[in-house]
Amino acid sequence: MRTIDWVDGTIRIIDQTRLPTELVTVDISDLDELVRRIRSLAVRGAMALGVAGAFGMALAAQQADDLDQALEDAADRLIQARPTAVNLSWGVEQLRQARAGGADRDGLLAAALAVRDADIATNRALAERGAQLLSGTSRLLTHCNAGALAGVEIGSALGVIDCLHAASPLSMVYVPETRPLLQGSRLTAWELGQRGIPHRVLVDSAAAGLLLAGRVEAVVVGADRIAANGDVANKVGTLAHALAAKHAGVPFVVAAPESTIDLATESGAGIDIELRDQEEVLALAGHRVAAPASTAWNPAFDVTPAELVTAIVTERRVIRGRPDAAG
Amino acid sequence: MRTIDWVDGTIRIIDQTRLPTELVTVDISDLDELVRRIRSLAVRGAMALGVAGAFGMALAAQQADDLDQALEDAADRLIQARPTAVNLSWGVEQLRQARAGGADRDGLLAAALAVRDADIATNRALAERGAQLLSGTSRLLTHCNAGALAGVEIGSALGVIDCLHAASPLSMVYVPETRPLLQGSRLTAWELGQRGIPHRVLVDSAAAGLLLAGRVEAVVVGADRIAANGDVANKVGTLAHALAAKHAGVPFVVAAPESTIDLATESGAGIDIELRDQEEVLALAGHRVAAPASTAWNPAFDVTPAELVTAIVTERRVIRGRPDAAG
Repeated sequence: MRTIDWVDGTIRIIDQTRLPTELVTVDISDLDELVRRIRSLAVRGAMALGVAGAFGMALAAQQADDLDQALEDAADRLIQARPTAVNLSWGVEQLRQARAGGADRDGLLAAALAVRDADIATNRALAERGAQLLSGTSRLLTHCNAGALAGVEIGSALGVIDCLHAASPLSMVYVPETRPLLQGSRLTAWELGQRGIPHRVLVDSAAAGLLLAGRVEAVVVGADRIAANGDVANKVGTLAHALAAKHAGVPFVVAAPESTIDLATESGAGIDIELRDQEEVLALAGHRVAAPASTAWNPAFDVTPAELVTAIVTERRVIRGRPDAAG
Repeated sequence: MRTIDWVDGTIRIIDQTRLPTELVTVDISDLDELVRRIRSLAVRGAMALGVAGAFGMALAAQQADDLDQALEDAADRLIQARPTAVNLSWGVEQLRQARAGGADRDGLLAAALAVRDADIATNRALAERGAQLLSGTSRLLTHCNAGALAGVEIGSALGVIDCLHAASPLSMVYVPETRPLLQGSRLTAWELGQRGIPHRVLVDSAAAGLLLAGRVEAVVVGADRIAANGDVANKVGTLAHALAAKHAGVPFVVAAPESTIDLATESGAGIDIELRDQEEVLALAGHRVAAPASTAWNPAFDVTPAELVTAIVTERRVIRGRPDAAG
């Protein structure tokens, strides 16, 4: 099953807000509804949002009287749905360029389907390359959700884990819950369960003890942005796992498409860290936990210095060192 | 205000299950009620439980017809309230020994009050010594709750922070929420707020990013047990902070009474790590978060190797290296 797909002229998504309680798909034939579903995180994850942006433009084109006007309106509304999601605007931009190149309605739909197919091919290639690199490891730790739910039908870090498990059944995948939004316990654990892969959820801060106790053979995570020097921005908590892996002598592998590498940013110091709503930390399930006067510091990401990264695996290569060196 | 005290023949506690929403004290004049309050974590924290054990024995003695029989019954019921809490049995044992030494009802009460007063004196001494060691630091990180709420009227790690703030107002104390039970956001943030100390709550895994960004000048935490070689068992999550502090070149200080040092245990490898209920991780506020088939690994503690510890401060000394060497 695909996280997002084009079926009979509509966009079909898995509603991730209903997971893991129930698996519900929604068919979207209206741009307003797509924007609402992006805002509510029913569809989320860098790669899936890229496809959502492209599909949204194709949907608008199917229903337009004035094609160019409809595409401009759709682009604005899609990008505004989550302004900081780089991949969402990237997906929109792919369709804008197709139109600039002369694509009509059918051409725009073909361009959107190509964005989807490229995501699948890219993730499959990087998953296979990552599994080759980590061949023989059987006890793994990941972080957050870099799984199929963040892409179309195969994830990056979790794609590597899928490929490893297909080659030889894994003993255990450790899944940090990933506070504050719990993508680990809600999404990654669900995906592993669906595939029959043995896994255990833990609080994020328990990973260091596991690593130093020798219970993990490799760490594999995704990335949100990789700087030219190899510094990796990913979901907050990644850095602590990298430090523990380094101390324990355990390989720390980043699995991410080439598109994640941002050569215009020299190092992690140049990456802006999004600060999110304090209530994500101060309240649980809508109930305030901390004292009323307490405030929170809630960064969405952290930066793992290149020196802590054993290798970066993309769909094209295994990078040890600077991504901008010959690959 | 004291976390636990003896007032007019009853045991007065702050009900910590009501914090930080409301500050409620409860007067306990019945051993069954005390046992219930210990079970529900209304009174918790190593040092406070030691005093609770001693007070419980004194309370039983006040109300007994057959003193020795009453003490034996009370000892059993108190220890069974939380069988893994070493300090609880230690507090009970102090009163057993007082009785063996010939103490009558009044003598037993005096012995219980001495346990309380020793806790206060010990924590005050170690807090002052710790503040001397960290003099001049203004941006600190702690973990869990090693505060007044874990003792009688002054904490260990948070006692150090109180003393530093009294000497010269601190700029910021960073408070990891401390999953799964959130002692950081529920208790430590509340205590800091009560004292007017600037603080911010963060998810546990965000601490590493803060440390590597140079935003913390020192880490100070408590300890549950310290081995003869200086390895420190403390609330899960402590190790990750120690690794990040080491990498960032930031001092990592453990503040704990001498009674925490267990010379019979050579190293952290000999410390049993309590595994707690999986539901603490898999559910939030009673609602299941993870998929029904997922399981969790939920250790209560982790072990920080001595090499990551800058200093251990007790009421008697500053230890750099092995606690069993000349202090």
